[in-house]
Amino acid sequence: MMKHKHGGDVYSRDYKIDYSANINPLGPPEGVLRAVRESAAMIQNYPDVSQRRLRQALAEQEQVPEEWLVLGNGAAELIFALCMAKKPGRALLALPGFAEYEEALRACGCRISWYERKEERGFLLEEDYLEKITPDMDMLFLCNPNNPTGTLTDRTLLRRIADRCRKYHVLMAVDECFIDFTDQPEEYSVKSWIGEYPNLFVLKAFTKLYAMPGLRLGYAICGDRQATELMRGVTQPWNISVPAQEAGVAALQEKEYVKRSRAVVKEERACLTQGLRSLGFTVWEGGANFLFFKGDADLAGLCEKRGYLIRDCSNYRGLSKGYFRIAVRTRRENEELLEALKDICSHRCCEQQ
Amino acid sequence: MMKHKHGGDVYSRDYKIDYSANINPLGPPEGVLRAVRESAAMIQNYPDVSQRRLRQALAEQEQVPEEWLVLGNGAAELIFALCMAKKPGRALLALPGFAEYEEALRACGCRISWYERKEERGFLLEEDYLEKITPDMDMLFLCNPNNPTGTLTDRTLLRRIADRCRKYHVLMAVDECFIDFTDQPEEYSVKSWIGEYPNLFVLKAFTKLYAMPGLRLGYAICGDRQATELMRGVTQPWNISVPAQEAGVAALQEKEYVKRSRAVVKEERACLTQGLRSLGFTVWEGGANFLFFKGDADLAGLCEKRGYLIRDCSNYRGLSKGYFRIAVRTRRENEELLEALKDICSHRCCEQQ
Repeated sequence: MMKHKHGGDVYSRDYKIDYSANINPLGPPEGVLRAVRESAAMIQNYPDVSQRRLRQALAEQEQVPEEWLVLGNGAAELIFALCMAKKPGRALLALPGFAEYEEALRACGCRISWYERKEERGFLLEEDYLEKITPDMDMLFLCNPNNPTGTLTDRTLLRRIADRCRKYHVLMAVDECFIDFTDQPEEYSVKSWIGEYPNLFVLKAFTKLYAMPGLRLGYAICGDRQATELMRGVTQPWNISVPAQEAGVAALQEKEYVKRSRAVVKEERACLTQGLRSLGFTVWEGGANFLFFKGDADLAGLCEKRGYLIRDCSNYRGLSKGYFRIAVRTRRENEELLEALKDICSHRCCEQQ
Repeated sequence: MMKHKHGGDVYSRDYKIDYSANINPLGPPEGVLRAVRESAAMIQNYPDVSQRRLRQALAEQEQVPEEWLVLGNGAAELIFALCMAKKPGRALLALPGFAEYEEALRACGCRISWYERKEERGFLLEEDYLEKITPDMDMLFLCNPNNPTGTLTDRTLLRRIADRCRKYHVLMAVDECFIDFTDQPEEYSVKSWIGEYPNLFVLKAFTKLYAMPGLRLGYAICGDRQATELMRGVTQPWNISVPAQEAGVAALQEKEYVKRSRAVVKEERACLTQGLRSLGFTVWEGGANFLFFKGDADLAGLCEKRGYLIRDCSNYRGLSKGYFRIAVRTRRENEELLEALKDICSHRCCEQQ
C-alpha cells in the first residue's frame, strides 16, 4: 500500500520558497511561537486528556457547546477516526478532492462512489450531486472550499444536501479547513446548522489558519453525542500533545491576526490570479488561500529547478497531468513565483522557435 | 462509552508531586528541551511524513533496519493502529494490565480472553499462560515489565510463548515501554528475535525513558513488511509532530542520561521498596521505574490531601480497592512521600486507639 504523496514535503528537496502547502502566508503568530517555546517546560507531564483549557476557548470561539467538539492530532486524524468509528459500508466522494478521505475509507473497507466535478463546469458541485445521495449511502465527505480546486459550494445547495442526508441517514462530513480564508466564512459554513442536523460533522483545523501544520491540531464539531463518543473511543486518550494544546489556546487569542490574514489573502489572491492569467494560464476562481490552474505538464519540475515548490496535482484522482495548485503567499513571494513562471514561459517560447 | 481514567492527570488537581505517572525521575534531558524550544521555528512546515532523520537515528540506536520501524503519536496510537490494521477477532490479555489494549481491541469489535496474574503467585506470568494461546486466537498483548505490577517475564517463557504464537499464527505484541529502566534490558527484551518471528511486534516509547509524555512519541518494531504497511495505512501521514520528531532525534543522543537514569532508578527503587516495607506495606519486586504495593483503600485520597498524587489501581480490571502504583522518583521526593505515608499510618493508628 503506497501512501498518497502530498504537498508541503520540504524535507526531500532543496528549495527557496514552498507554494505547495496551503499555509497562512503571514506565518505563525508570535503568541503561538511563544507558547511552543514555553511548552518545553511542560513536556514532562502527559497532555490533559480532556483538553480543558483548549476546549473551553474553542467552544467560545466557535460558539458551540464544548461537548460538540472532538479534538484530533490534525484534522487528518479525525478523518480516520470518523471512518473507524462509523465503519461506513458505502460512501460518496467528489473528485478531484483531498486524498485522505479515500485513504481513510479504504482503510475501513468502505466502497466508494464518485461524483465528478467537471472542468467545463468550473469544478463546481452542482445539483446532480443530490442524485448520488441514495438510501444505501452511509457517509459523504465534502470539502468547502474544495482542495485542490478552491471552489466554493453555496449554502442553498448545501442545505438541500443536508436535507437529503438527513432523510436517508447519511453522515455528512463537511471539511471547512480552509473556510476561514474566504471573504465571508459565515456565508458558506454549515456550522450553524449542526443543532438541526444530528448527522452533520464539520471538520476544521488550526493547521492552515494559524500556519502551524508542524504541531497537528484539528477538530470536529458535531451535535450527535453518540457519534462524538464513538470517535473518542477509537482514538488514544493523549492524542493532542502539550505543545499543540498550548499553541491552540494561544492561537485563539489572535483575533486581529485572523482578520489581517483574511484581508491579505483576499488582496493577494486577486493579484496572483491576475498575474497568472496575464501569463496565459487558466486559473479557476478560488475562495481559499490557494489557487488552482492549468499549465504545461512539466511546470512543477521546472519551478523546482529554480527553487520553487508548487503542487503538481496529477496524482489527484480525476486529474491528469497539467494541473497545479499554489498557495497564496506574500506579495514579494507571489511576485517571485510569477517572475519564475514568466521566465519558464519565455524559455519555452524560445525553444519552440 | 467512558474512557479509562489513567495516572498522570495533573490538570484536575492541585498537587505538590505527581507519583502517578511513570516518568523518568531525572526529567527531560536539556537537549530535548532545547529541541522543543527550537522546533517553534519549524512549525510552519508539515512534519516529515517519512520521519527520515528520526527513523535513521532510531534504527541505529535499536540496531534494526529502518523499514522495521513504525512511529506513532505515542505508543498508545500504535496499539490502536495495530488493532485497526489487523482487525483481530479474538485476543488474549493478561490482567491486571494497561487499559489501552482492551480499549483498542473493543474499538475494533474483538472478543477478549483473559489470563489472570495471581497475587499469590507474585502477579507473575506463568506456564499456564501457554494453554491460553489456542489456534483460534488472533493476537495477544503482553507488557514486560508489566504495568502496573512491575513484574518481569523471563525469556525462557517468552521464547515458548513466541514459538506457540508462531505455530498458531497469533500476533504477539510485546510492550517494552518500561524495559529500558530494568537493570539488564537485553536479558528481557525480545527485540533480537524479530527476524525469526514475523508475527512479533515490540512496542516502545520515548515517553517514559526521556520524560517527555507531553510530546507523544512511540514506535513499533516488526519484521513483517505487510503488517507494518497495514499499520501505516490506518494512520494519517503526518502523525508525528515537528516538536516530537526534533525531540526524538535529540533524545537519541543522550546515551549518558540513559545510563544514569537506569542507575538512579535501580538505587532509588531499592530504597523506596525498603521504605514502603518498613512502613508495613506489601510491595512486589518490580523491574521498572515504578512500584506496586498494597495499602488501605483510601490511601490515594489521603496522599492527595497532602499534595501527593499516587495511582489508585482499583480501576484496573482484575484489581479491587487497596492496590497502588507509584513512580520511583528522586531520593528527596521519595523520602517526602515516605514521610507522608508514615504520617498517614500514624494518624490511622491514633484513630484506631
